[in-house]
Amino acid sequence: MRNFKIIVSYDGSRYKGWQRLQNESSTIQGKLEACISKMCGATIEITGSGRTDSGVHAIAQVANFRASTEMTPTQIADYFYKYLPDDIVVNSVEEVHERFHARYNAKSKVYRYKICNSAYHDVFERKYSWHVQQPLNIPAMREAARHLLGEHDFGSFTSDKTPDKRSIRTVEMAEISKNGPFIYITVEADGFLYNMVRIIVGTLVEIGLGERDINSLIKALEKRERTTAGQKVPPQGLTLIEVKY
Amino acid sequence: MRNFKIIVSYDGSRYKGWQRLQNESSTIQGKLEACISKMCGATIEITGSGRTDSGVHAIAQVANFRASTEMTPTQIADYFYKYLPDDIVVNSVEEVHERFHARYNAKSKVYRYKICNSAYHDVFERKYSWHVQQPLNIPAMREAARHLLGEHDFGSFTSDKTPDKRSIRTVEMAEISKNGPFIYITVEADGFLYNMVRIIVGTLVEIGLGERDINSLIKALEKRERTTAGQKVPPQGLTLIEVKY
Repeated sequence: MRNFKIIVSYDGSRYKGWQRLQNESSTIQGKLEACISKMCGATIEITGSGRTDSGVHAIAQVANFRASTEMTPTQIADYFYKYLPDDIVVNSVEEVHERFHARYNAKSKVYRYKICNSAYHDVFERKYSWHVQQPLNIPAMREAARHLLGEHDFGSFTSDKTPDKRSIRTVEMAEISKNGPFIYITVEADGFLYNMVRIIVGTLVEIGLGERDINSLIKALEKRERTTAGQKVPPQGLTLIEVKY
Repeated sequence: MRNFKIIVSYDGSRYKGWQRLQNESSTIQGKLEACISKMCGATIEITGSGRTDSGVHAIAQVANFRASTEMTPTQIADYFYKYLPDDIVVNSVEEVHERFHARYNAKSKVYRYKICNSAYHDVFERKYSWHVQQPLNIPAMREAARHLLGEHDFGSFTSDKTPDKRSIRTVEMAEISKNGPFIYITVEADGFLYNMVRIIVGTLVEIGLGERDINSLIKALEKRERTTAGQKVPPQGLTLIEVKY
């Protein structure tokens, strides 16, 4: 069996997220597995670096799969391009060491959340950003974001209700940049809890709107209580932009 | 009657172009007229700076309409934003002199055509660009584009079959720029014939692919024969970016 690493970009708009679901064909993993299984004439499982939620996009999700095939990486990439729907593109296929595992070997992931901060939503970015009409206090959001850096228990910043699950993660970057009406919140961590980025962004936006102060974020980091953090923002603004190994 | 100038952006993907058609609700003009007519309780006609083809986008199409209303320009803009579908946004409403006419007063228009020149199409730009897999010779395309500048008879560069129609236009800009895999062809002229930008782009791309030479473009400009120019490229790469007055 050869082991292949793939880098995939997808527009998540019409999918129920990354993870294959029973009786549900509209997931990214499901589409990729159906395609490569057909190519190989055998059931192939694809392992992603992690799940993305329903409606979330990826510029460079990483996954791997093991298969017996004589095809070259380029031929496999071309096969994917020919048979996948046009909102999923495998940009790179590479043969890797048999022990490479897209999830276990991932060192960190980078997500970016895009906000369109203007009177009206940008027509061409409406599916790839969240529209916030009221002005945002970016310096306050930047100051708050600095408190996310380092190792913390992010138990307040997840929709996961499993009580004793380990929720300590290390945030290596939390940056806010602006380009015209667009505000980008970029977060890198060694791992993310369920809905973690979207709840972090919601908390920062509430600070930017003056609805909460920076202390409330610090307190949320000291607890493990969902109610102490902000609202979860919509999925269409979120994109997985890099997985580092 | 007050006269209002509006600036509209739209994602043309699911529309049959700008111009209202009988028994056909899916045009930009039709959507705008239905909305403003409902607001005013009277049939209002909207005059665009010009038509855009089915599937073509606009960042800043300009139009005007006359209406008896007590509403302020901001209230009208908010009304449009509330009731138009999310792929049409009126970004600006301004009360103008009664003699302002969006079509007659337009001095020039700027169109931009976006090509994604890479092995595989960019997922997020698939609806806003045309995918060309083979490498393009940009310097050759730039040299060819220079010959378009100035006043010419563009009779070869239109799908309009009306034999004696005036087809002289002045091209004021024809520029080719590159950003990553994307190539932008920007053309400004005092007016455009039916399909003119898409046929100009097709001719330039054929030169970029080495399928025709620059002389063939010069010859096409000397004739009025559709067959002497290149193929018409698909609509989704084309965007009306500015109308100058």
